[in-house]
Amino acid sequence: MTAAATDEATQDVPAHCQDLAAAARAAGHAMATAPGRQRNAALHAIAAALRARTPELLAANEEDLAAAEGNGLSDAMIDRLRLTGPRIERIAEAVDAIAAQPDPVGRILEGRVLDNGIRLSRVRVPLGVVFIVFESRPNVTADAAALCLKSGNAAILRGGKEAAHSNRAIHACVAAGLGAAGLPAAAVQLVGTPDRAAVTELLKLDGLIDVCIPRGGESLIRAVVEQSRIPVIKHYTGNCHVYVDASADPDMAEAICLNAKTQRTGVCNAAETILFHEATLRSGLAGRVVAALLDAGVELHAGDRLLDATPAHPRLRPATAADWAEEYLSMECAVEVVASLDEATDHINRWGSRHTDAIVTGDLAAADRFVARVDTANAMVNCSTRFSDGQQYGLGAEIGISTDKLHARGPMGAEDLTTYQWVARGDGQVRS
Amino acid sequence: MTAAATDEATQDVPAHCQDLAAAARAAGHAMATAPGRQRNAALHAIAAALRARTPELLAANEEDLAAAEGNGLSDAMIDRLRLTGPRIERIAEAVDAIAAQPDPVGRILEGRVLDNGIRLSRVRVPLGVVFIVFESRPNVTADAAALCLKSGNAAILRGGKEAAHSNRAIHACVAAGLGAAGLPAAAVQLVGTPDRAAVTELLKLDGLIDVCIPRGGESLIRAVVEQSRIPVIKHYTGNCHVYVDASADPDMAEAICLNAKTQRTGVCNAAETILFHEATLRSGLAGRVVAALLDAGVELHAGDRLLDATPAHPRLRPATAADWAEEYLSMECAVEVVASLDEATDHINRWGSRHTDAIVTGDLAAADRFVARVDTANAMVNCSTRFSDGQQYGLGAEIGISTDKLHARGPMGAEDLTTYQWVARGDGQVRS
Repeated sequence: MTAAATDEATQDVPAHCQDLAAAARAAGHAMATAPGRQRNAALHAIAAALRARTPELLAANEEDLAAAEGNGLSDAMIDRLRLTGPRIERIAEAVDAIAAQPDPVGRILEGRVLDNGIRLSRVRVPLGVVFIVFESRPNVTADAAALCLKSGNAAILRGGKEAAHSNRAIHACVAAGLGAAGLPAAAVQLVGTPDRAAVTELLKLDGLIDVCIPRGGESLIRAVVEQSRIPVIKHYTGNCHVYVDASADPDMAEAICLNAKTQRTGVCNAAETILFHEATLRSGLAGRVVAALLDAGVELHAGDRLLDATPAHPRLRPATAADWAEEYLSMECAVEVVASLDEATDHINRWGSRHTDAIVTGDLAAADRFVARVDTANAMVNCSTRFSDGQQYGLGAEIGISTDKLHARGPMGAEDLTTYQWVARGDGQVRS
Repeated sequence: MTAAATDEATQDVPAHCQDLAAAARAAGHAMATAPGRQRNAALHAIAAALRARTPELLAANEEDLAAAEGNGLSDAMIDRLRLTGPRIERIAEAVDAIAAQPDPVGRILEGRVLDNGIRLSRVRVPLGVVFIVFESRPNVTADAAALCLKSGNAAILRGGKEAAHSNRAIHACVAAGLGAAGLPAAAVQLVGTPDRAAVTELLKLDGLIDVCIPRGGESLIRAVVEQSRIPVIKHYTGNCHVYVDASADPDMAEAICLNAKTQRTGVCNAAETILFHEATLRSGLAGRVVAALLDAGVELHAGDRLLDATPAHPRLRPATAADWAEEYLSMECAVEVVASLDEATDHINRWGSRHTDAIVTGDLAAADRFVARVDTANAMVNCSTRFSDGQQYGLGAEIGISTDKLHARGPMGAEDLTTYQWVARGDGQVRS
């Protein structure tokens, strides 16, 4: 590319982004009046296109995979990037499942007749234009597009460059589905340029884009928040806790701690710290759970009180303050003893990420107090932290898990991509 | 003050703000478990203190009023600043009324039993710490404190320096009420320093403060948004429209246009632009409404199509593009003719501020199409824009009117100062 061409491309980014966002805004207004039947028809047509074009999708994915090693991607990242026939079928099934969900648009949240006869209602309407920035998984292209369409929004999608070919091929299926259902092509746009400047420009367009949802690692989310004039729904770390209360059933406590820590470690709702009531140290329960974790291959970072009471082990080491804040996402876990339930919730409220936190207890008052005191999106009583998930909660596909408190908290489904509108119907009322 | 003392005070601002926000966070955790009875007792005690200390409040207000003219405050600003016996009684009544509202905390939004037996519910909980930045009206000190307490939050209040004495006197009543009910003093803190740097510092503390709500002019809100790392709920301009459809009842159209524009002009839900379907030009309805507005003393900024069809008048002048975006807050109004309902909603979606927009029509399909197409927080059919208000909607006192789409839209009551928590209650469930 010549220097002149580079300059031209660079200068074009703001204008290109402005056009793209303006097209999304217009498409969003069209989507807002498209009936659910039409939006669902588009979703089924997208699923059909994904199935019909499986060979093209695999070929495009091969191009990304061929470049992946050269790009220095880890094996785990390459696995996330890889499409297979069965994986494409699952993506198509997820789109069909989103079509089958109830329509979130038009739901009446409340309604009443005012004294003056005005009939007031509060009705779910689409947010408008949703901007999703994501990393390597190509399935997000289909999932995010489908959730935005389901909820009557226009979507702007910006995927990682590692998956550029795969994303374009999936987007072509989305475009085919939109066309088949008579919906505007601009209802789902993929940001074509690999230039990071495009994200920066789009994040300035708060008049044309209503919300940004970054899906990826913490550094991606922080970069988006730093730059954005658009409201951002954030999904920071999942530093999740299990608190084993004095009255916990020993078998249940062991099963839940093991499951929360080890059933799948690389996910945000896995446990990262386990706190034991000091009575469980005396009863032997803390020691039993610690031994089970060590036996399972978990490396433990133990606070002083637990360390003093536990026999030496090659996978047991002293914790530092940094461990209380750590999201290991691996077979590592911080562990400590607390003097009381309140000390446990104080610890969680200080160090946790307000994602998912569990208590194991047989004491009703302790369960209620834990739930009331813990400042978390998902408070779990006597079950694994691993259940805080949109599928598990019955929301269908999820667009993310919010660690924010505004708008949406915890697992977010299609309904969380809507806002509401107050509608007042009168017959000539004026204010006096 | 010596130079050394000034330096010390300046250097202390970050530390002071950190302490203040940390105290608010701790108080917020205490408030989250305080029962509604205790929060309501504090509210009634605050109302009683406001009544009992009326002489002190008036004396403090006199100090602000004495300084007001020297500070160059306009008559309107001085009127907003002024407390009187009856005004203090109305503030106290508003606090009692907030106490009488249903408790938003603990409301179960939904709940179900999952296939695995986990009982899942989504429950309203306080946001945590709410930071309210406001301008000269001292009643906001009491209103905002009361709404935050009602919803189980801790509040940080930062009022205008013009009302510093009045705000301190009202805050003393709030502190007395908190003390009487056994709630922590830090549940409502007034930022003492007149230094603007304190606001800047507090807006950085996203780990300790959950939301910022600026109440005041657009420049205040933009300054807060620019600086804040904390989510901000914004209330920008109210550029509200009335669209007079072809099928509008003439008497109703005239009454609604007059009421929306002139009943009270300095408020955000007053109309700023009136659009007429071209058929109303032919029928004479547009001319009748224009004449009524001119007779009422309104200055009209008319678009070309209306101007061409209207006899000259000293208060009728051509509109410029800037008029479509203007929030006059006075006896001025932009007026224009549109060829269709869709042209009206396109105009509103382009120029409006998504606050409140009305249609006057006798045609059911037109009413439905207007509501579906107009991108606004409050869509009014055959009633005045002036009804979009928390009191009118039955929300009780309002903390503001959101022109955002995330979290809260339109009039915001105590419930909008809450978030929700997912609570999952099991009996040992683990994921397989």
